[in-house]
Amino acid sequence: MSGPHPDVARTRLAVRTALADLAPGSLVLVACSGGADSLALAAATAFVAPRLHLRAGAVVVDHALLPASASIAARAAQQCRDLGLDPVEVRQVAVADTGGVEGAARAARRGALEAVREETGAVAVLLGHTMDDQAETVLLRLARGSGARSLVGMEPVADIIRRPLLGLRRAQLRAACRALDLEWWEDPGNAADGPLRRADGEPLPRAAVRDVVLPALTRALGADPVPALARTADQLREDVWYLEDEGWALLARSVVGTAEVPGRPGWPAAVDVAGLAAAPGPIRRRAVRYWLVEAGAPAGSLAARHVDGVDDLLLRWRGQVGVDVPGGLRVRREGERLLLERTPARPVHREAPHDEPAGDGAADAPADPA
Amino acid sequence: MSGPHPDVARTRLAVRTALADLAPGSLVLVACSGGADSLALAAATAFVAPRLHLRAGAVVVDHALLPASASIAARAAQQCRDLGLDPVEVRQVAVADTGGVEGAARAARRGALEAVREETGAVAVLLGHTMDDQAETVLLRLARGSGARSLVGMEPVADIIRRPLLGLRRAQLRAACRALDLEWWEDPGNAADGPLRRADGEPLPRAAVRDVVLPALTRALGADPVPALARTADQLREDVWYLEDEGWALLARSVVGTAEVPGRPGWPAAVDVAGLAAAPGPIRRRAVRYWLVEAGAPAGSLAARHVDGVDDLLLRWRGQVGVDVPGGLRVRREGERLLLERTPARPVHREAPHDEPAGDGAADAPADPA
Repeated sequence: MSGPHPDVARTRLAVRTALADLAPGSLVLVACSGGADSLALAAATAFVAPRLHLRAGAVVVDHALLPASASIAARAAQQCRDLGLDPVEVRQVAVADTGGVEGAARAARRGALEAVREETGAVAVLLGHTMDDQAETVLLRLARGSGARSLVGMEPVADIIRRPLLGLRRAQLRAACRALDLEWWEDPGNAADGPLRRADGEPLPRAAVRDVVLPALTRALGADPVPALARTADQLREDVWYLEDEGWALLARSVVGTAEVPGRPGWPAAVDVAGLAAAPGPIRRRAVRYWLVEAGAPAGSLAARHVDGVDDLLLRWRGQVGVDVPGGLRVRREGERLLLERTPARPVHREAPHDEPAGDGAADAPADPA
Repeated sequence: MSGPHPDVARTRLAVRTALADLAPGSLVLVACSGGADSLALAAATAFVAPRLHLRAGAVVVDHALLPASASIAARAAQQCRDLGLDPVEVRQVAVADTGGVEGAARAARRGALEAVREETGAVAVLLGHTMDDQAETVLLRLARGSGARSLVGMEPVADIIRRPLLGLRRAQLRAACRALDLEWWEDPGNAADGPLRRADGEPLPRAAVRDVVLPALTRALGADPVPALARTADQLREDVWYLEDEGWALLARSVVGTAEVPGRPGWPAAVDVAGLAAAPGPIRRRAVRYWLVEAGAPAGSLAARHVDGVDDLLLRWRGQVGVDVPGGLRVRREGERLLLERTPARPVHREAPHDEPAGDGAADAPADPA
């Protein structure tokens, strides 16, 4: 007796591990584009879910970016039904053509997935991102300078999203599809020479990283960088989460009094110098950053030099007047406290927070209008 | 009255900042190859040092990798003398042709620099690494999977080494040389199409990253990734140093009794479970890693799964026998202690620690011979 193809078995094991904690009877939804990754995910979920006493459905999002989009979506939906998934929903979304196409498509997709999840009462939405996707994400974000936060890459579990395939390679999922006789759709939007382009005619960033940059890096090293990039993301995730938690805890401990930042009800306007100054730098600087961003400093404009300035108020105060911070804010030291105030209204130059995916800019509240 | 060229002024300011803490009368040495970066560094140091009451000399290392090496070195030395540096020493080194040429050249250069520093009594050796070098280093190490540790890039100050130019671009140092009428030498070993090659005929990794990968990444993003890569290194440096310090401190607190690991005099064989188990994951896992590596586990072979196994002994002990660790070691739990023992001798597969620069492998002590 021969078992399943090794890559089919690996995919099923990955899905089983990712779903093992869900309560029997729960519904999970696979986000399926008809591409090899999400089709292999759909097949593995259809196999695993009944054995875990779970129900499994699918959502197919039609981005309507290409003429054939509707028929591609219909075909993917039929494949999901043939695999035994139920319910299978197709949603057409409108991709805003402002900003990057890749970011806008992601935001539209997320909205549709969340809507179907709510309607169906599903407890989790499974995405087919692979180790290759993870490596591309890390490299893109690193090169855009999003700092430690971005190097953690895509998270295996984030709220209702789960990514069971982050440990598998794209090639393995193709092999799994072939072994299962599943014909996948090759998204031309995924290729650097595909029809979707930036405004300047260049390929989309992710497509260029995948088709040009990573192969060049592979040749430069004489070795495949994808597992290394993904592993680094895994290692840094734990570090970054820990430091962020400590930063928030420090900020919470440091609040003094009940004064609020004008225009930000409930957000503290005064913090304790001694507690902050005694904390280790990476935690102290995060606490300061969170204090300023939540008060309205746009995350994309708040630079290291601003946090350095506040650090000087804490550790090297020689009577400085204060530190101006983007978003029309000023930090002042008054004895053993730091105070956060609004500066008199004047036009503020806002840099675009280019390292945030579209639709995630909620923290980037506009600066005070002049 | 016109001041110096802006890039000359920036280079001088960077050197002044890097040397400001040195005692008057001290000698600093510039490592000069005759290339634009180190020549600009030599010029700035010759200008700044007397103003800080420092003495400044230079070391020119002749790697003897190219036929013209000796005359290139002699010319660089003469340029340094013309700038007023004194003493100026030329050292020829033999680059081992095992392993990578770039790593071997770096190791040979370090040896020569350290020798001249000792002979002259210099307190610091200045290297001309730029922001571009930093970005290349981060990208190379990231792609090789050296983890968080490697993402910190090259350090501005490390023991007697100082790198004053990490905040400046290569183009700025060329502009400074032009403004000062300094003719630099264009190292063909720095170009991907240069004469130095890997054994498989491909360009050297760093040259390929500089000439092929970074330009491809720039096109993919539509923006220059160098400042972002360098900034990430700066941000992560503080995080990583903090977590490493905490890891060592936790390990030191957790030692129990006086038993030593066989063959590692002075290295503790027993640690306390409760203290380790109560520590945050990123700190606990580092403490475990340091414990194992210093006991003889080769850093390049010690994988996340080994540390995970020890974590299970600490947090999820259900009577497991123990965890085998590369280097012929085994970790066992005995009540409220973890014990580190040698396993009976058997051949151990050693992976090459490919992410370490040549000559830095001291931590990679050989595994127990069979």
